Amino acid sequence: MEKFTIGLDFGSLSCRGILVRTSDGHICAEAAMEYPHGVMTEALPDGTPLEPDFALQHPRDFREALVKVVRELVGKCDDPKNIVGIAMDTTVSTVLAVDSAFLPLCEKDEFASHPQAWAKMWKHHGASDAAKRVELICKEQDRPYLDLYGGSISPESLFMKAIETFERDRAVYDTSACFIELADYLTSLLAGEPIFSTPLLRAKAFYENGSYPDGDFLAAVHPDLCGLPKKLSEAFGKKTLAYPGAHAGKLCPEMAEKLGLPAGIAISAGTADSYSPIMGIGINGAGQMIMTIGTSTGIMIMSDEPKRVPGVTVSIIDVFYPGKCGYGSGQTSSGDALGWFAKNCVPARYEREAEERGISIQALLTEKAKSLPIGAGGVMALDWFNGNKSCLANPNLTGLFVGLTLATRPEQMYRALIEATAFGVRAIIENYEKSGVPVREIRAAGGIVGKNKLLMQIYADVIGMPIMASRCPQVPALGAAINAACAAGEYPDQRSAIEAMSCKDFDIYSPDPENHREYDRLYAEYMTLHDYFGKGGNRIMEKLKGKI
Amino acid sequence: MEKFTIGLDFGSLSCRGILVRTSDGHICAEAAMEYPHGVMTEALPDGTPLEPDFALQHPRDFREALVKVVRELVGKCDDPKNIVGIAMDTTVSTVLAVDSAFLPLCEKDEFASHPQAWAKMWKHHGASDAAKRVELICKEQDRPYLDLYGGSISPESLFMKAIETFERDRAVYDTSACFIELADYLTSLLAGEPIFSTPLLRAKAFYENGSYPDGDFLAAVHPDLCGLPKKLSEAFGKKTLAYPGAHAGKLCPEMAEKLGLPAGIAISAGTADSYSPIMGIGINGAGQMIMTIGTSTGIMIMSDEPKRVPGVTVSIIDVFYPGKCGYGSGQTSSGDALGWFAKNCVPARYEREAEERGISIQALLTEKAKSLPIGAGGVMALDWFNGNKSCLANPNLTGLFVGLTLATRPEQMYRALIEATAFGVRAIIENYEKSGVPVREIRAAGGIVGKNKLLMQIYADVIGMPIMASRCPQVPALGAAINAACAAGEYPDQRSAIEAMSCKDFDIYSPDPENHREYDRLYAEYMTLHDYFGKGGNRIMEKLKGKI
Repeated sequence: MEKFTIGLDFGSLSCRGILVRTSDGHICAEAAMEYPHGVMTEALPDGTPLEPDFALQHPRDFREALVKVVRELVGKCDDPKNIVGIAMDTTVSTVLAVDSAFLPLCEKDEFASHPQAWAKMWKHHGASDAAKRVELICKEQDRPYLDLYGGSISPESLFMKAIETFERDRAVYDTSACFIELADYLTSLLAGEPIFSTPLLRAKAFYENGSYPDGDFLAAVHPDLCGLPKKLSEAFGKKTLAYPGAHAGKLCPEMAEKLGLPAGIAISAGTADSYSPIMGIGINGAGQMIMTIGTSTGIMIMSDEPKRVPGVTVSIIDVFYPGKCGYGSGQTSSGDALGWFAKNCVPARYEREAEERGISIQALLTEKAKSLPIGAGGVMALDWFNGNKSCLANPNLTGLFVGLTLATRPEQMYRALIEATAFGVRAIIENYEKSGVPVREIRAAGGIVGKNKLLMQIYADVIGMPIMASRCPQVPALGAAINAACAAGEYPDQRSAIEAMSCKDFDIYSPDPENHREYDRLYAEYMTLHDYFGKGGNRIMEKLKGKI
Repeated sequence: MEKFTIGLDFGSLSCRGILVRTSDGHICAEAAMEYPHGVMTEALPDGTPLEPDFALQHPRDFREALVKVVRELVGKCDDPKNIVGIAMDTTVSTVLAVDSAFLPLCEKDEFASHPQAWAKMWKHHGASDAAKRVELICKEQDRPYLDLYGGSISPESLFMKAIETFERDRAVYDTSACFIELADYLTSLLAGEPIFSTPLLRAKAFYENGSYPDGDFLAAVHPDLCGLPKKLSEAFGKKTLAYPGAHAGKLCPEMAEKLGLPAGIAISAGTADSYSPIMGIGINGAGQMIMTIGTSTGIMIMSDEPKRVPGVTVSIIDVFYPGKCGYGSGQTSSGDALGWFAKNCVPARYEREAEERGISIQALLTEKAKSLPIGAGGVMALDWFNGNKSCLANPNLTGLFVGLTLATRPEQMYRALIEATAFGVRAIIENYEKSGVPVREIRAAGGIVGKNKLLMQIYADVIGMPIMASRCPQVPALGAAINAACAAGEYPDQRSAIEAMSCKDFDIYSPDPENHREYDRLYAEYMTLHDYFGKGGNRIMEKLKGKI
């Protein structure tokens, strides 16, 4: 009898779900739903205006997507009673403030116009100043967190987003029972009881060696902050923590009813949408890098021995796989920068051409960019439109174009953006190599990978290594489905589940040696700009943003 | 009996002409014509592709515009026999290669596909490398040209454009009888005999103390170049040189017939479209600066004593007015950069909004930019889209945007461009002051001045001085008409002609002290970028252009 699991991938703009055969990872059905409210950057639904760096989401969107996507998958399954498990990944840290009944505070009338009561998306940057202060306290008190988090504290983390609420809206903070990652919020809804994902707390909430920071540390941030752990997973007791792939709970009858699934099937703890592809794409050891290229880019790699790597987001043993040290890096705007450009910087004649030919603007730009020489005909960009996560760990850096002339065409700027993100990936790879974490193989997944061959070839040419580009558009959801199969006990261990179920269908992009040599030269120019604007030579980016 | 003169202004894209009453400068009639071929940057009319830095024009366009505009003015004149003189200004150096019958070589079939045989527009940059070599020779041989031309040799000058032809297309060079400024070409057509404008040759053709560079100098550039002076004004003998405002010749019967004007009326030598407004706007002494803001910006000022000012285009005694040292500076892309942006970087939804409201895209962008704070909400630009003429004298510098985020809107980039050109003007003013040429008053003319109040206010706020913005859109043509009146003997000297005939209608833009303080801070940031990218800190702009 065939068995199946459901893997869900909650991205920045939509939820995608798959029904997977546990024996071989075959994807039997797919479903998706866009979030009705998308990303709120300018105003709340009631019109309350938002600050420039805010990026909020509506919790109801996630719940609606959960129900709609799962029901559609169940509807496509011949025999739903053979579905044995469910698991998910989500963007992190996307943080909700909930009450003790798991109701997000923004859904209470009295908090509807409080930005801090809404789901704060990963790229919401409201705690930059506070993150700098926490960084200082880490140093002063000689705490391990800077080592774990790559030498700096990200304002994007759950921990900092909770402190942001404490500092900006005490009413929301005081009323909250718990600040919770989206993955944990939704997984807990499935189980009808709290389930927290240990790797997420370790990576995003300063949870190390079984506990949160002590009172000395928290009091240094603010005397009234000592109760913070009681508003994280400790709100519900420690027994609720689990690693993804373990049996963390059972689908509660109420949700089973709603979703059309058998009650009591296995639930795995959730994981990050950047971690999940590690399994989905078949990574099983040290030295295999995965980059997941979507609106942003997540880069993950493991080493046998722990190393100090500057500018990573995590550097934690066991965080991906038992016994390995897992590292995470990221670029905050890859697809996002291209999308911004296509939406804001492309003239009507291009839009008309795309429309007449029935292709997207980005497809048209890509086509035009393809015929340009290496270096986009003299235009170079810095791709920091949403700050730089790795290796500079500075959310207040900004995007840049140089080399513009009166003859510059939009496709040159578009190609320069693609090349800039490729240079950014190369900087991350060189940073790993230099820090003693060798990169032996590169696998790629994510929305852009299958769509944009030009981008993939530029990445290979810039990096100078072949890239195994997954043909499966559902690699993150597949990783979640593998976790669900493990939780359901279908495999003796994670390793054998990955071997059996992961995606095995790749396009190989090999670097062109001549292009690579050309890019070597341009990469040196990129790094000169990178270091000048990113390492203190000229802090104009932060000044223009009013941050210093 | 009222008398009249005709003043013609040949700009980058069109010719504008006016019929002026000599007694008080009253403009009685206006006419204009756009050049049918505009600016050719990508291909010749027969499809021959052009190099990236080329900007060519069709000589027939100028002749057609001359005839059409003058005939229209004559048609509007009650009594054409009372028209006593005609004169013009043109862009410089816009250079034609002509045969001994003044036929441009591009109009001969055998040269139709030779780019060098076409009119090379002022912003055509084909001689950048040669200009560097000539600069070196000036230093080695201790010649005065670097002092006259602000410390560097511009590839835009007539002299360098002739050398460019020598080096790139010997057939065109050998066949040419003369390399001639557009102003001199058209003035000579009017007279039916050669007339060269002395200030243009002094400013653009190394003509000093009554002669061109000697054989030692020319041979150092190339042994076969010693005959170059015989292909400049010496092709027709020295007697053909004249200062604008003097009686240089008479309208020949053939052209009188074509234009509908009385034969034999006075012709003044032509002048530059950046010099002509000096008279048109009423400048009569040292310390009064004029900036003419159009596709590019020309800045002129005089001092009583000659000073060494780096980065000016001219620094020559008598060049504007007898007895004064005249200085010229410029920005190569002001309106051009805004036009490039409006054409290439503004999305369809903006074009639709402009269309629905019946306004231009630039008017829409200006309106949106007006409500932005000082500093364009965090975006800064370098306005070097066509290189930097003053004070860096480097045509290979390029445009830059910094401060871009995923929330950046087109109007922010547009405002940043306006602010960047304003910072550029301030840099020019500070350079004059530092060099001992005080700036006591600023007058502004040009196409943008009457159209864009936001731009004018930003200029005043950035500079911190009031700006007298001429309400007359025909200031350059008025300057030409004043020269024509002088040539016709209507006034005893230029000074009294300017006093009587110049424009007296101004809008005054006064700096807002608070805005000025804010801009002080941003100007410091601009200058940090300016010096880093413009003074050798990072030569990426020239590298990306493949120039070093």
